[in-house]
Amino acid sequence: MSRRKVTLDANEAAAYIAHQVSEVIAIYPITPSSPMGEWADQWSSERRDNIWGTVPLVAELQSEAGAAGTVHGALQTGSLTTTFTASQGLLLMIPNMYKIAGELTSTVFHVTARSLAAQGLSIFGDHADVMATRQTGFALLCSNSVQEVMDFALIAHAATLKSRIPFIHFFDGFRTSHEVMKVEQLTRDDVRAMIDDELVRAHRARGLSPDNPVMRGTAQNPDVYFQARETVNPFYLATPGIVQETMDQFAKLVGRQYHLYDYVGAPDADRVIVVMGSGAEVTQETVEYLNANGEKTGVLQVHLYRPFAVEQFAQALPATTKTIAVLDRTKEPGSTGEPLYMDVVTAMAEAVGAGLVPALPRIIGGRYGLSSKEFTPAMVKGVFDELKKAKPKNHFTIGINDDVTHTSLDYDLSFSAEDPNMVRAMFWGLGADGTVGANKNSIKIIGEDTDNFAQGYFVYDSKKSGSLTTSHLRFGPKPIHSSYLINKANFIACHQFSFLERYDVLKNAELGAVFLLNSLYGPDQVWDHLPSSAQKQIIEKKLKFYVIDAYAVAKETGMGSRINTVMQTCFFAISNVLPRAEAISAIKHSIEKTYKKRGEAVVQKNFAAVDGTLERLYEVKVPDKVTSTFDMRPPVPAEAPEFVQKVTAAMIAGNGDDLPVSALPVDGTYPVGTTQWEKRNITLEVPVWDTEVCIQCGKCVLVCPHAVIRAKVYDPKYLADAPATFKSTAARWKEFSDYKYSLQVSPEDCTGCTLCVE
Amino acid sequence: MSRRKVTLDANEAAAYIAHQVSEVIAIYPITPSSPMGEWADQWSSERRDNIWGTVPLVAELQSEAGAAGTVHGALQTGSLTTTFTASQGLLLMIPNMYKIAGELTSTVFHVTARSLAAQGLSIFGDHADVMATRQTGFALLCSNSVQEVMDFALIAHAATLKSRIPFIHFFDGFRTSHEVMKVEQLTRDDVRAMIDDELVRAHRARGLSPDNPVMRGTAQNPDVYFQARETVNPFYLATPGIVQETMDQFAKLVGRQYHLYDYVGAPDADRVIVVMGSGAEVTQETVEYLNANGEKTGVLQVHLYRPFAVEQFAQALPATTKTIAVLDRTKEPGSTGEPLYMDVVTAMAEAVGAGLVPALPRIIGGRYGLSSKEFTPAMVKGVFDELKKAKPKNHFTIGINDDVTHTSLDYDLSFSAEDPNMVRAMFWGLGADGTVGANKNSIKIIGEDTDNFAQGYFVYDSKKSGSLTTSHLRFGPKPIHSSYLINKANFIACHQFSFLERYDVLKNAELGAVFLLNSLYGPDQVWDHLPSSAQKQIIEKKLKFYVIDAYAVAKETGMGSRINTVMQTCFFAISNVLPRAEAISAIKHSIEKTYKKRGEAVVQKNFAAVDGTLERLYEVKVPDKVTSTFDMRPPVPAEAPEFVQKVTAAMIAGNGDDLPVSALPVDGTYPVGTTQWEKRNITLEVPVWDTEVCIQCGKCVLVCPHAVIRAKVYDPKYLADAPATFKSTAARWKEFSDYKYSLQVSPEDCTGCTLCVE
Ligand code: SF4
Ligand code: SF4
Repeated sequence: MSRRKVTLDANEAAAYIAHQVSEVIAIYPITPSSPMGEWADQWSSERRDNIWGTVPLVAELQSEAGAAGTVHGALQTGSLTTTFTASQGLLLMIPNMYKIAGELTSTVFHVTARSLAAQGLSIFGDHADVMATRQTGFALLCSNSVQEVMDFALIAHAATLKSRIPFIHFFDGFRTSHEVMKVEQLTRDDVRAMIDDELVRAHRARGLSPDNPVMRGTAQNPDVYFQARETVNPFYLATPGIVQETMDQFAKLVGRQYHLYDYVGAPDADRVIVVMGSGAEVTQETVEYLNANGEKTGVLQVHLYRPFAVEQFAQALPATTKTIAVLDRTKEPGSTGEPLYMDVVTAMAEAVGAGLVPALPRIIGGRYGLSSKEFTPAMVKGVFDELKKAKPKNHFTIGINDDVTHTSLDYDLSFSAEDPNMVRAMFWGLGADGTVGANKNSIKIIGEDTDNFAQGYFVYDSKKSGSLTTSHLRFGPKPIHSSYLINKANFIACHQFSFLERYDVLKNAELGAVFLLNSLYGPDQVWDHLPSSAQKQIIEKKLKFYVIDAYAVAKETGMGSRINTVMQTCFFAISNVLPRAEAISAIKHSIEKTYKKRGEAVVQKNFAAVDGTLERLYEVKVPDKVTSTFDMRPPVPAEAPEFVQKVTAAMIAGNGDDLPVSALPVDGTYPVGTTQWEKRNITLEVPVWDTEVCIQCGKCVLVCPHAVIRAKVYDPKYLADAPATFKSTAARWKEFSDYKYSLQVSPEDCTGCTLCVE
Repeated sequence: MSRRKVTLDANEAAAYIAHQVSEVIAIYPITPSSPMGEWADQWSSERRDNIWGTVPLVAELQSEAGAAGTVHGALQTGSLTTTFTASQGLLLMIPNMYKIAGELTSTVFHVTARSLAAQGLSIFGDHADVMATRQTGFALLCSNSVQEVMDFALIAHAATLKSRIPFIHFFDGFRTSHEVMKVEQLTRDDVRAMIDDELVRAHRARGLSPDNPVMRGTAQNPDVYFQARETVNPFYLATPGIVQETMDQFAKLVGRQYHLYDYVGAPDADRVIVVMGSGAEVTQETVEYLNANGEKTGVLQVHLYRPFAVEQFAQALPATTKTIAVLDRTKEPGSTGEPLYMDVVTAMAEAVGAGLVPALPRIIGGRYGLSSKEFTPAMVKGVFDELKKAKPKNHFTIGINDDVTHTSLDYDLSFSAEDPNMVRAMFWGLGADGTVGANKNSIKIIGEDTDNFAQGYFVYDSKKSGSLTTSHLRFGPKPIHSSYLINKANFIACHQFSFLERYDVLKNAELGAVFLLNSLYGPDQVWDHLPSSAQKQIIEKKLKFYVIDAYAVAKETGMGSRINTVMQTCFFAISNVLPRAEAISAIKHSIEKTYKKRGEAVVQKNFAAVDGTLERLYEVKVPDKVTSTFDMRPPVPAEAPEFVQKVTAAMIAGNGDDLPVSALPVDGTYPVGTTQWEKRNITLEVPVWDTEVCIQCGKCVLVCPHAVIRAKVYDPKYLADAPATFKSTAARWKEFSDYKYSLQVSPEDCTGCTLCVE
């Protein structure tokens, strides 16, 4: 049976399965899990049904505590019930989770693993939330990639019915939940084949009902609670076997064979990394690269984290393993070690005791990737290098510079395991300029119309208005395990000229890469308008440099300021992902599909934009010398206080990753009033004060949300030294008849929201 | 400096310290922590001040989530803030705990460790709740006894200010929280000496205030969250040292020297148990007993659980240690092992790696004492015996019979490490008859008026009305480490004659023990009214048997049905805890103190009861043969269904501890309608239907909360076969003019609440 290839992110993949096998879905939105609830809600409102032909009831509660209570309650009626959550939301579910597990109730919670608020809040991904539930009695099944999310979602729903143990199915927040990937879509028949209706009936029969009255949730006293708590042992002992059986059944049906613990690498590896989540993909890519270059490394990818199956775990490791590094994507301050590390030490000590393993390997543990901190092949290599040492560092960190307690490992930042045959394209865009949408569309075109594998990941900054987005797209003939941002790009597009002065846009360009710039200046003028560091990189990295005046094309072809189609066309025209003609026809086909509903005129305008683009796309002849007399603007003015200079400025410039531990406050305490130093300069139009028209009502001052407009009434003597361009007029108040009035606008802070002129 | 000896329970001990060093106390009641909040509330309402002369603000919130938020908020203003909680209450605090710890905020949460609701709810004690917070970044300090609770409460409040790490100070729910012990009370000067005002000022200076504006609780992105999370390392690394320093400072001041990990036992022990909480006391008692009998055992008592100090832990173990059993008072289904076990395995593996320990000892882990399941010297010996085996069982349970997955260790139930010189007195009383109050008073008398050590523990059944209470009192010249119920009593008092038919009151009587019975029957008649099994035990165990008609004495001396003073007098008269004359004068002194406020007449009535008692207390001449023709009543009738016969009946009879794992439902699901089989027979007076007076309004039927009274209108033909005593009368309704009316009362279900006759 041939299955459709689709490009989607993990949230959609999980929701796609969960919606098909649920009757009740209790939700409360929390980043990065919200899209799962949104998809489920949308599909139910569209009357999409589950595999039994009924439309799941999607209920949004008042908090995750309510969602958990609803899940528990619905399960107790015998309904097939699921929920989606993360982070603090998951914490609010903990009390109910003990009960759901204690009552041996089949359910799956799909969790986008996310950091917990500690010294600061973070919406990004790590395993802190999931680890806070490891003692509840839930099984924990981890997906490492978008394909696994779809597959394991189904495996979890099948296994929970067989085992009666509730499951958390989790995957990395953002890195996996928001990664767009080309995957094979499971069919409704697949889902039907994996879910055993007999087990569904058994689940339903356990529901509380007046027809079959039983009591549940009683109080138990010291006389029997302990014995009752031990009754569940056989269920937990059986679960690893059940999950493996379910994986085997899945393999027979679909072809992809998974194991509780999947080992990838040299069969005679001496050094092995144990890791779960998207980091396992990165480690796999690195292991394959290193082994191709003569090393003997391996990665043990953890899928079933709870129940932890000691025997299967130990047996999955090569007998040759001498040293192990366990990577945890969480930090539990004051613990003996991070949780996966402690599991591995305990498991291996027991495996030695049981004769499964001859001697205890040297095991070290480390932290990586907290809160979506990048985890790259360079870091993986750093860990493998550490394992070579006679006394490798334990309780290390990788990926940061810990200059305080010196936990961090050094690693070679320049190391890369990227496949040279892969298209690696980075796009610098504005939140509002359509870059992300166009890129998602490009992935769909390439992913669904060709045999290429495709991946897209989108980084948003935290500013709401005028935010920077960088898109990271990979395309290529081989499966993609690169769950990290592109750091060696062979295509870079900058959709906003002004970025060149603010960000090091070309930092990740590799030798000979293509650079596409949206520029008001044509191929002959543009060079002189580039900051010197950009010129330098274009020359030294021998970039192929193209310009397009996208705003001009968009305006001329009636697209207004929407430059997405223009820039997308340029990408296809010069990136060589597809033959040019084929690419152009694919774009036009996609335009037709997208805009048909909005009428033929819109379609034609877009077609015109495509054709106009090709005419206005120019390669720039790159001079061989840096000629520019200016460089990038400093992120904050020189008079900013020390903390702002040192910390805030680095973060504004996009270099926060380079800040060492010592630069950050120990307890999340920050100085106030630092936003005054961040001049964002994001508007294209600012209000201008017209002294003739102004009635001095002051409403614009009041209404501006960014305090851009300030009014002042003052003694005329102060005008003596004012510059000639300084505007003033007579104050209109009787009380201040001898005074002057001025209204000043701070263009650097204006967001162009237009509230002041409305 | 001489300190007062006081008898109090651990809740009062913790509250006593917490109230002195706090400014804000946020509470929400949850068993078994509620008394801490109640004490604090009472003291503040009495305007008792803290060591700085201000009265702490005690605020009761709407849940523990609110209490945690209030704690976090108050701490952020710089207030010294505390709270008290347990179980689900603690779970609701988890989200705020991450923030409080992440922000390095000094506070102490006092927690009575309690089970979590899983297959059933339980109000009793184990470490499941505390273990659910071990990843939050809080330090966890465990007290094993009431004296330690007072001492460690102060040490925790001092250490949190020094370390900036928030503390959970925990102790076993009920077993420690409700154990009444004679302890040395710390003085206000002690408290003042331990709390450094400079550190208090520093804590206050970190508060958010308009005078010193800072920002806290920001959002952090992938660029800096990881580094910021690592900034706290030096604080966690310093904490074990700070706690030890604080313990040393405390030792200098008070004389009691504690360590992070206190080893007790043979310096050359080969077998060591690692344990924390009240179980550590039991293990200590057993170790001392075993070693006195030639064994080489030891116990490592864990005080500082987080941060776990690997080096100090490894160094506290004797170098001779060959095998270790780690006892966890919690169960985490699906885990690689219980938490303390995993900490010990990891710590020892690291200690071997660091060269602190030559080789990894064999380490096994087991569960004990869940939900206040008894943990006794016999069980400790069972564990030590297991450690002698070539292949000791790992992941064992002790104290139950696991006939399903066979985790349980066998042990010799008859083993006892009780000190023969200790008075071990058990009292069987009714919730309402004043037994517990009288016993608490006896402990005070003996504890505070003599040099004896004293301990009291009280077991309540879960029934609200007419509940059984058993009191377990120990007195003796040596410190008491027996944190378990008395199973070899040398004094047993039964305050309700009817108990003899329902409970095996004499089961725990040791050879030659004293048995005191409150009996309507005098010394010459009583024998024939005893069930045969009671007679048998009295003869075989050679008990000294006394009777008192306590209700008669109470009535005669104007005490109504309050028999507490009478029974207390008997205890002192025949137990030989104190010389009789001294004891009687102590009781009278105590009566004066207690009742003076209520007038001289009350005092004199009580004095009369004391004197009357001595006149009416008789020793029974025990026959040498069992003569009784009846025995204990079966707990449920023979026609009850199988589950009730097998499970409910055992629980009703007080033998629930003997139920094997297989007897209990796997998922907390129970049959309904089982209360019908439990005929409690607890009332002394039942309503009688007076056919003359009854107007057939039916209100009594409606009002009875136990459905004791049922009315029926029926065809007179059914009376044909009715017994002669069956009452009936003409129905008063026009519609039923030919019918009969009967009202029936089920005396066995009546609680004597009197609602029906009001
Ligand atoms: S456009 Fe918006 S941000 Fe700019 S000055 Fe007007 S109100 Fe302020
Ligand atoms: S005394 Fe109370 S329990 Fe007994 S019959 Fe009357 S109302 Fe019912």
